[in-house]
Amino acid sequence: MLNLCNADWEPAFVDFFNGAHREADYLKLNEFGEVPVLEAGELVLSQSGVILDYLAESFEAFDGESVPEHREIMRWLFFDNHKLTSYVATLRFLTQFADTGETDVTEFLRLRAVSALKIVERRVSESAFVTGDKPTIADFSLCGYLYFEDEITIDFAAFPAIVEWLGRIKELPGWAHPYDLMPGHPRK
Amino acid sequence: MLNLCNADWEPAFVDFFNGAHREADYLKLNEFGEVPVLEAGELVLSQSGVILDYLAESFEAFDGESVPEHREIMRWLFFDNHKLTSYVATLRFLTQFADTGETDVTEFLRLRAVSALKIVERRVSESAFVTGDKPTIADFSLCGYLYFEDEITIDFAAFPAIVEWLGRIKELPGWAHPYDLMPGHPRK
Repeated sequence: MLNLCNADWEPAFVDFFNGAHREADYLKLNEFGEVPVLEAGELVLSQSGVILDYLAESFEAFDGESVPEHREIMRWLFFDNHKLTSYVATLRFLTQFADTGETDVTEFLRLRAVSALKIVERRVSESAFVTGDKPTIADFSLCGYLYFEDEITIDFAAFPAIVEWLGRIKELPGWAHPYDLMPGHPRK
Repeated sequence: MLNLCNADWEPAFVDFFNGAHREADYLKLNEFGEVPVLEAGELVLSQSGVILDYLAESFEAFDGESVPEHREIMRWLFFDNHKLTSYVATLRFLTQFADTGETDVTEFLRLRAVSALKIVERRVSESAFVTGDKPTIADFSLCGYLYFEDEITIDFAAFPAIVEWLGRIKELPGWAHPYDLMPGHPRK
């Protein structure tokens, strides 16, 4: 989102795999112990849905044009936090970083993620972007982890409209792969 | 929330256990296939975070008093959707309705829920309500499923501040147990 808004920003490395997000200094920034945190002058914001909403308002970009449109965008942000990225991110963590291999838990998470993807698939087969013909923060919330296609252990063959939608987002000026934006990658 | 706002409202039964939420008529109201849906005149809203935000704005109640306060409330609503009610609701569903018994999946969900409850516990041991000394929609989002204390298979002994906080919410004028507000309970 920062890149797509052509914002003046830089990433700060958080040593997540060595538990930096659980240390007192970090918890002062975000008691949830999560990344990302946005620091903008005196303002400290966490939770990606809130950060996206703040950026859309600040840059007057990728938002709805009316209260009902904004509510519809927020509805998808909540859906993503509840039903999609929540499961996909955990599935990626377990299979790629915790190296649990296939378990009942990874199967459960994958089934939940696939259910959510079916809902997104229907949406983006009807319009170019999730809430209509323009990209919004709803798209950016939902798509984030889907660009780790080699890591999330989900077969995209059943989701042709999602693959095309991800392609459309990729074409937006300023787009970069998450790994190209994050310091500390590739991991040692 | 509707009760606490003394709203003129009535519940409509959705035959969830017979799949009414997956039928075409219902999906027209909410393509996510979730309850609840709020119908208010022409307006149809779904996703509880969005509904709570709409109600707080409409009734000018249980909201923040400034933009930063509102953002902090939204941050907890997202946290709840991502990390607390999401897991607690699924845990309740599996143990009480799908009758899976104890499995690796229920254990996983419980561990995640307990991690989230620890964050809430810290918060409500520092202030009467989640975002300060007044109740807001952040509290109502987080507390909902916790009143099903006999069904969520989580031991509250480790969460004394949460137990007191739930008691404080219960004392608000208009409060009623979710089961007393839902048609179709007790289930046959």
